[in-house]
Amino acid sequence: MKKIGFIGVGIMGKSMIRNLMKAGFEAAVYNRTKEKALDVVQEGAVWCDSVAECAAGRDAVISIVGYPKDVEEVYFGEKGIIANADKGTYIIDMTTTSPKLAVRIAQEGEQAGLHPLDAPVTGGDTGAKAGTLTILVGGKKEDFDACKTVFEAMGKNIDYEGPAGCGQHTKMCNQIAIAGALAGACEAMAYAKNVGLDVRTMLNSISTGAAGSAQMSNVASRVLDEDFNPGFFLKHFIKDMSIAQDEAQDVDTKLAVLDDVLAMCRELEEQGMGDLGTQALIKHYKW
Amino acid sequence: MKKIGFIGVGIMGKSMIRNLMKAGFEAAVYNRTKEKALDVVQEGAVWCDSVAECAAGRDAVISIVGYPKDVEEVYFGEKGIIANADKGTYIIDMTTTSPKLAVRIAQEGEQAGLHPLDAPVTGGDTGAKAGTLTILVGGKKEDFDACKTVFEAMGKNIDYEGPAGCGQHTKMCNQIAIAGALAGACEAMAYAKNVGLDVRTMLNSISTGAAGSAQMSNVASRVLDEDFNPGFFLKHFIKDMSIAQDEAQDVDTKLAVLDDVLAMCRELEEQGMGDLGTQALIKHYKW
Repeated sequence: MKKIGFIGVGIMGKSMIRNLMKAGFEAAVYNRTKEKALDVVQEGAVWCDSVAECAAGRDAVISIVGYPKDVEEVYFGEKGIIANADKGTYIIDMTTTSPKLAVRIAQEGEQAGLHPLDAPVTGGDTGAKAGTLTILVGGKKEDFDACKTVFEAMGKNIDYEGPAGCGQHTKMCNQIAIAGALAGACEAMAYAKNVGLDVRTMLNSISTGAAGSAQMSNVASRVLDEDFNPGFFLKHFIKDMSIAQDEAQDVDTKLAVLDDVLAMCRELEEQGMGDLGTQALIKHYKW
Repeated sequence: MKKIGFIGVGIMGKSMIRNLMKAGFEAAVYNRTKEKALDVVQEGAVWCDSVAECAAGRDAVISIVGYPKDVEEVYFGEKGIIANADKGTYIIDMTTTSPKLAVRIAQEGEQAGLHPLDAPVTGGDTGAKAGTLTILVGGKKEDFDACKTVFEAMGKNIDYEGPAGCGQHTKMCNQIAIAGALAGACEAMAYAKNVGLDVRTMLNSISTGAAGSAQMSNVASRVLDEDFNPGFFLKHFIKDMSIAQDEAQDVDTKLAVLDDVLAMCRELEEQGMGDLGTQALIKHYKW
């Protein structure tokens, strides 16, 4: 395992490419907007003019793009990864996308003689930079094992979750739990403000006990500083929650709190707040 | 500050009385059911036959009983704390009750020449036992300062939250944040199970990152072990959430997730699950 094709040089991808090169992998890269890839190319990555060029002649092809439709565009069709990767190549989608789409990539990939894995991550841009991502992997166990060194270059907790789609399903669990904890933190803060408490004092009192959560820690100080810059974009959170809601419905499971949080976030997006961070959920309340 | 009257010798109260005596305070105790107080009496607490007897002749009177109506019974009327405590006594309600009721106790208590504080706790029975409770105090700052040694005998984080009612309001924030985080954890687990993930593997993968919460840590292992014994009673959580909902409405603040979680918990209570622990919320989902 030496030659990596990497598709999607965004905030996440860029750091992951750097960590792969640092670990000794050869990286060939493609991005829809070439300008965004210029610095990693200067640092030693090889630029490819198309997905097809980036996919051919590699040991593994990694993608981390935006929305499910971007994933489809990159994998399927004549110009896609599946049609252009060499037989035996490991194809690894690290985008957060739908488990259903992961299964489809796995099926078509296997038919083409490839080794598909779905491997979304948690840990955000800071985790990508530090190489401490958690990587949630679905696919065949032997393919997971074969790609371990690749994952270890980018992350710290590398977990095998089960067959194709299970990496994505696990990521959905992550987003579902975040939705509840985030809303709980926002509602506690909104209540506090409106009944006249000192919100900082309240948060200091409760955040280390049974009410504490990573979301409370992340969100509280940003909200109090009126900082609504994205750590994680509201619009991407909406995408993820929509997928989770859809998959939950498929197995006849109603997630009332997820549904609520998604509805509130969509209202905020309609009001033009999609490019803010998820802490903007507080704006749905009387804040 | 030496002589303490303590009303309510339940799971919480018993441990708190022991810690007060350990710190050198003299404890006189009253409980509706005498049998529950026998062991602390054997350990040196003085039994009182009534609230009135327990309230008279003390430096401070502490109460920790069940529901708001129990608090009213203990404080108001001819036989209550306010009518029977000596002038200058600190009267401290540590029950989780409504901020409105705390304000009423404060007003009537002050008129009677007493020093009222509302001081609900977090940390549960283990915190009460270990003397590590977080104590959320509302009332006059000088009364808070005067009672600090009393609180320090029972807790570790002793926080002044503001005027009368603010201790209770802060406890409401705690319960609101718990509602969201608990629901998020339950929904993630229900989703995982129904899509066919290994729930333990999923939890290991996500619980240390952005999705992590004290609720996830508390609830997950209990649910997986099918242990629905109460760490915190569902029926008490319903009481607390009802108070929070009511107070939020008073300040025209809609807490959508709290409302949802409360509605789900009430359905479970109607099905006879009120005496289970809060982790029973998972039973509302397809689990």
